[in-house]
Amino acid sequence: MPQIDADRLLADLYALREIGKYKTGVHRPTFSPDDVRSRHWLAGRLTEAGLAADIDGIGNVIGLAPGDGPKLLTGSHLETQPRAGWLDGAMGVIFGLELARVLPGGIDVAGWADEEGHYGSFIGSRSFCGLLSEAEIDTCRYREDGTPLRTALQNAGFAGRPRQVMDAARYRGYLEAHIEQGAELENSGQQIGVVTAIVGSHRFRIVFEGQQNHAGTTRMAIRKDAGVALVRLASAIYDRFPAAAGPRTVWTTGTITLDPGAPSVVPGRAEMLFQFRDTDPAILARLEAVVEELVAEANKGPCKVSIASRGRSVPRAMDAGFQDALERAAERHAPGLHQRMPSGAGHDAQVLAERLPAAMLFVPSIGGISHHYTENTADADIVRGCQVFADAAADILGR
Amino acid sequence: MPQIDADRLLADLYALREIGKYKTGVHRPTFSPDDVRSRHWLAGRLTEAGLAADIDGIGNVIGLAPGDGPKLLTGSHLETQPRAGWLDGAMGVIFGLELARVLPGGIDVAGWADEEGHYGSFIGSRSFCGLLSEAEIDTCRYREDGTPLRTALQNAGFAGRPRQVMDAARYRGYLEAHIEQGAELENSGQQIGVVTAIVGSHRFRIVFEGQQNHAGTTRMAIRKDAGVALVRLASAIYDRFPAAAGPRTVWTTGTITLDPGAPSVVPGRAEMLFQFRDTDPAILARLEAVVEELVAEANKGPCKVSIASRGRSVPRAMDAGFQDALERAAERHAPGLHQRMPSGAGHDAQVLAERLPAAMLFVPSIGGISHHYTENTADADIVRGCQVFADAAADILGR
Repeated sequence: MPQIDADRLLADLYALREIGKYKTGVHRPTFSPDDVRSRHWLAGRLTEAGLAADIDGIGNVIGLAPGDGPKLLTGSHLETQPRAGWLDGAMGVIFGLELARVLPGGIDVAGWADEEGHYGSFIGSRSFCGLLSEAEIDTCRYREDGTPLRTALQNAGFAGRPRQVMDAARYRGYLEAHIEQGAELENSGQQIGVVTAIVGSHRFRIVFEGQQNHAGTTRMAIRKDAGVALVRLASAIYDRFPAAAGPRTVWTTGTITLDPGAPSVVPGRAEMLFQFRDTDPAILARLEAVVEELVAEANKGPCKVSIASRGRSVPRAMDAGFQDALERAAERHAPGLHQRMPSGAGHDAQVLAERLPAAMLFVPSIGGISHHYTENTADADIVRGCQVFADAAADILGR
Repeated sequence: MPQIDADRLLADLYALREIGKYKTGVHRPTFSPDDVRSRHWLAGRLTEAGLAADIDGIGNVIGLAPGDGPKLLTGSHLETQPRAGWLDGAMGVIFGLELARVLPGGIDVAGWADEEGHYGSFIGSRSFCGLLSEAEIDTCRYREDGTPLRTALQNAGFAGRPRQVMDAARYRGYLEAHIEQGAELENSGQQIGVVTAIVGSHRFRIVFEGQQNHAGTTRMAIRKDAGVALVRLASAIYDRFPAAAGPRTVWTTGTITLDPGAPSVVPGRAEMLFQFRDTDPAILARLEAVVEELVAEANKGPCKVSIASRGRSVPRAMDAGFQDALERAAERHAPGLHQRMPSGAGHDAQVLAERLPAAMLFVPSIGGISHHYTENTADADIVRGCQVFADAAADILGR
């Protein structure tokens, strides 16, 4: 079995953290100068490790191992959420780099572009899988200020480069390591999570149109209060979902907007962003039917209620054999301290799973915190996770 | 009976509309350059009408009629909500100006400062009634950008002037004319409203503190979703209020904020601004008890819920004799086309009513629209309203 170098692994992670460092975390939005710098840094490290590394036309860093023989694709993403953690994405990329060193000729490494969705939805991994059209790239814009993706690629120096597309025949499959971003491993005292499936999510914008009016002079009987309609629907969703959901389904209203949003004005328009996630497509379909039914009921009230999809991602089961390989390796280095679990968060592995057998390994997140600069994982958990990851890769490669 | 001059009245209103004109309305926030200009303009017009007029240390324009004999105080406000209507406030002030001309020696006219609450709560009329302390002025700030009221008064050129305080013995009472700002008169085909009482309002900020988390990785059972707590409480209020409220009570959640307000983040904090209004203090007290009970119930859930008052205004009955005088005048000029009605909006008359017999007259608002630049009233309704107002004033003055 390969032996990873713990000091080298941590030194690489610490070096990457310096690029866009923010407090104890990192601020490295996709195609920001620090993000671009981190991509060139990674390409350099991969080249030093003996890979043929380059950055392609969508910003993916791809390092290809030399020689023939079986190959595994590994990776994760380099960019971060705003003022977020140092491990989300970065850890999986550096695990790949370390594996490329200890399993020479067997490991390709990818630093996918924009898993965090600053410009679109998994544009990096989808591009590599041949699932991103030029037309879609034309429509992508930076969610903060509307800058077109094309402009950002131009500014980053990546425009005009070819986009690299996967040769699926090259690979045994795809492995990705990631922090859990939840507290399940920590709460149960486990050290390794073997991901069984990545949830699918259905995301919606629900808009309520009523009539804006004076909150003092407009009698209740004639109001068309869009805020009331929203509150009623949101509450009905929370009444109805538990019976229709599965044991691990999650549903969230993260955004509510009342317009004009003044204390003495009856809201004329309201909007909520609602989503739910599960690994079972049947549950997702059932919940969507519940939402549609509730919207139809809401339309019997004084406001006009409309629902639009903001996207649906399909749940992706992880490869059973890869899960077994990860579990065997986990049992070697964390005996009795590993568990199988779904991923409630989305990851590039769900895209790669459309083309290759794929699997993921989780390490614990301290306090379950993620997308915040205090996100962290104990060094010992990082090192152990990488060794388990390397063992499983060697197993899959037949070494 | 006095005879108002319709052309002069409308000409004054049109002239005032030019100061801060915005589309078909007016943008004249308190102590903006246009608002200050409008105060000087009014002081000039009042002086021309034979009154001793000046602007005092809080920005009130006060015009005092010459001679002894009985006096009536009339007025309203000059400033507007942002990009709002041309008649809200302005009409009542110009009615006062016209009455001062047709009832010489009998009418004092006030253009109160900041009825619209850009800096505080009825600071102009409260100052004149001796109900505004220097300490409170120190705390007032512009709601848009936090500029201290002291600074605004300095910039306006009003700082250092004495604040004029009412000699209550001088007056028979206070009369204010205003647009209805609702659609009740229009819907019932009436031309004049005689206000019976001005509602009291109780205003609250309700804050929900939970725990911010990842919307994919945080299981439902352990969430402390501040947004859910808010939706549940808001919905419970709308369930419980109809049984506890009076026939004309109104209640409104005008503002909802989820923090951080991102679609894939469980809200860690949420806030709603809630208010209710009625003319009956017993109903207001009962509703406040209902809200407190619901907050206590909400605190049994996973989030911490706290409620803080943003102010309580007391309902004010209008003077019965003045209402009769207004009704007699209305019957003369709009026979069978007038009605008694409460005011759901707050007005300076509710402050003056603490010191003097007070009453209000309403004219119809087209479509019930107010606090919007399309706010309007038919010229014929304005002219008729002013004549009714003048007749009632003459009646009260015994002329």
